[in-house]
Amino acid sequence: MRSRLLFSAFLWIISEAHVILLTEMFGEIRTPNFPDSYPSESELTWNITVPDGFRVRLYFMHFDLEPSYLCEYDYAKVESEDQVLATFCGKENTDTEQAPGQQVITSPGNFLSLTFRSDFSNEERYTGFDAHYSAVDVDECADKSDEDLMCDHYCHNYIGGFYCSCRFGYLLHTDNRTCKVECSDNLFTQRSGVITSADYPNSYPKSSDCLYRIELEEGFVINLQFDDVFDVEEHPDVSCPYDYLKIKAGKREYGPYCGEKSPGRIETGSNSVQILFHSDNSGDNTGWRLSYTVTGTPCPDLRPPVNGKIEPIQSKYTFKDQAVISCNPGYHVVKDNVEMESFQIECRKDGTWSNRIPTCQTTEKNMRLS
Amino acid sequence: MRSRLLFSAFLWIISEAHVILLTEMFGEIRTPNFPDSYPSESELTWNITVPDGFRVRLYFMHFDLEPSYLCEYDYAKVESEDQVLATFCGKENTDTEQAPGQQVITSPGNFLSLTFRSDFSNEERYTGFDAHYSAVDVDECADKSDEDLMCDHYCHNYIGGFYCSCRFGYLLHTDNRTCKVECSDNLFTQRSGVITSADYPNSYPKSSDCLYRIELEEGFVINLQFDDVFDVEEHPDVSCPYDYLKIKAGKREYGPYCGEKSPGRIETGSNSVQILFHSDNSGDNTGWRLSYTVTGTPCPDLRPPVNGKIEPIQSKYTFKDQAVISCNPGYHVVKDNVEMESFQIECRKDGTWSNRIPTCQTTEKNMRLS
Repeated sequence: MRSRLLFSAFLWIISEAHVILLTEMFGEIRTPNFPDSYPSESELTWNITVPDGFRVRLYFMHFDLEPSYLCEYDYAKVESEDQVLATFCGKENTDTEQAPGQQVITSPGNFLSLTFRSDFSNEERYTGFDAHYSAVDVDECADKSDEDLMCDHYCHNYIGGFYCSCRFGYLLHTDNRTCKVECSDNLFTQRSGVITSADYPNSYPKSSDCLYRIELEEGFVINLQFDDVFDVEEHPDVSCPYDYLKIKAGKREYGPYCGEKSPGRIETGSNSVQILFHSDNSGDNTGWRLSYTVTGTPCPDLRPPVNGKIEPIQSKYTFKDQAVISCNPGYHVVKDNVEMESFQIECRKDGTWSNRIPTCQTTEKNMRLS
Repeated sequence: MRSRLLFSAFLWIISEAHVILLTEMFGEIRTPNFPDSYPSESELTWNITVPDGFRVRLYFMHFDLEPSYLCEYDYAKVESEDQVLATFCGKENTDTEQAPGQQVITSPGNFLSLTFRSDFSNEERYTGFDAHYSAVDVDECADKSDEDLMCDHYCHNYIGGFYCSCRFGYLLHTDNRTCKVECSDNLFTQRSGVITSADYPNSYPKSSDCLYRIELEEGFVINLQFDDVFDVEEHPDVSCPYDYLKIKAGKREYGPYCGEKSPGRIETGSNSVQILFHSDNSGDNTGWRLSYTVTGTPCPDLRPPVNGKIEPIQSKYTFKDQAVISCNPGYHVVKDNVEMESFQIECRKDGTWSNRIPTCQTTEKNMRLS
């Protein structure tokens, strides 16, 4: 029984406080009977809603409500969804009353409500108010309150919204906000080189998956040397959840790398290396730089034949290195019973020499044999 | 035959110069193949139309066309309905070439066209342009170029238009622009008064028909005295085509009055005067001020009876004036054989006295008669 009474009282309050919904892009709001004096015991609320991307601008051209201490009798109250923006009464500002004057109120969002209330009696006649509202465009490009929603490169405002675009050479990501680079097709085939994250030493692009491949023929192995300066977005607790660098070399994998500690030197032992660099849609880090070199498979040490020599003399011979064997004066190179001036051998990809080292024999001996 | 050839050539030109119609509120315009280099021998026009109440804002985020003297080879041309707003080529400004840079072009009206043209050959590869446009609201309230279209009192801009409103006490005319007053019901019944145009000595309201009535009972006549200062909108050649003051007094009509010459004094000879003041929807004039007085119908001069006197003694008696006749000591007023101390007569609305003047007779004679 008691809850039923409460419910009835609640309905009564609702029906007394008339609510008018306004959804036009502009309009005029007047107290009842304006410009004649307003009735006692009135309560009226105008709820103004404009489309997303707009705010509501409200101002008064005429204002004359009964003055009272802290506007406790008659008032005009301006509210957003969750806060009272202003409470007005009287005709001019006093210590305890505020009249709107030339003030323009702009809603924080796309909603604003104006409530007019008069109490049971007015000693004099008051003419009420004449308010005007209009939707105003939000310049999302100027309003940089939420960085995560902002454009990565360029922001274009239009009435009711905004869109992003990218600098020349970049592509807008499907998130319509960040600018990625097309960088999945970088192939390096030289025996040395330098690779950096895009735009290095400027911040690397967001929302990108860059693939750098170093491909050399079998018999070479690739060594990577990262610069000491290394800057990839990291997380204090989780391992590289945002941006990361990963390296594949044959069946070996390195990384993921992130943070400010350089991976340093990596001897991959492979002739084929893939460097994958992933960036997410936020962060502002400078990335990385590496230089790579190539070493061949080592061949066994060479010893010159008796009465002969090897050129060039190296402490170590690796894949593709060549060595020429020649003999001292009075001797000739003899290989498979053939006499010649010199003989060249090459270090092969499997770490063996292309031939055994020939011998040096005196010319007479050779002549006698032939 | 010849005209047919011409017609074919004309069609060919049309089909070569592609025209793209853009009617969205914002958009991006790129040269063909952008960001790759644009083709030779292209001509493309984008015609941008936005709704009334908006202008078109255009700017370039990237610009790289073949440079040439006065942009005679490749160019981007920006035009409104009737004028070329800019012609761009090259990549940077020189003496003879203009590149857009950060420039923002705003259309004078709601239309803007952008034409891209490339000639038959480019020595190098040029990447073209990436332009963006958006509709921007015209603030009609700030743009006071055409006074005749402006609001009389208050102007309220909204996105896509504007509307007018009036100061407290005024009504918006059906022209939705000028503010009139409700002033058809001004009745004056006192024997003197002052009447002015509304808001005097400030400018009188536009688009108004004000009627001022002075009504007195029959027997009075109304005299109007206009101040010397008089200011009603006039025309140098035509008689009061805009604003005018007209006076009706019985069957007599005065005016129309306008200009700066005061009507001066008008003795209407009537007890009922109508003053009609009409204003049109323009002008800024201070109007007029008049004071009126009332005189009654005159009655014949009075002569005191023999041995008697009249009070008050006036050179002229008019409607409602009263005169008291009394007699010298030793005499009595006798009217219709009745003896009395004094006798009062009144000047009537038809200009006659209410009674004839009685005689003064000695007391003895009266006594003897009775």
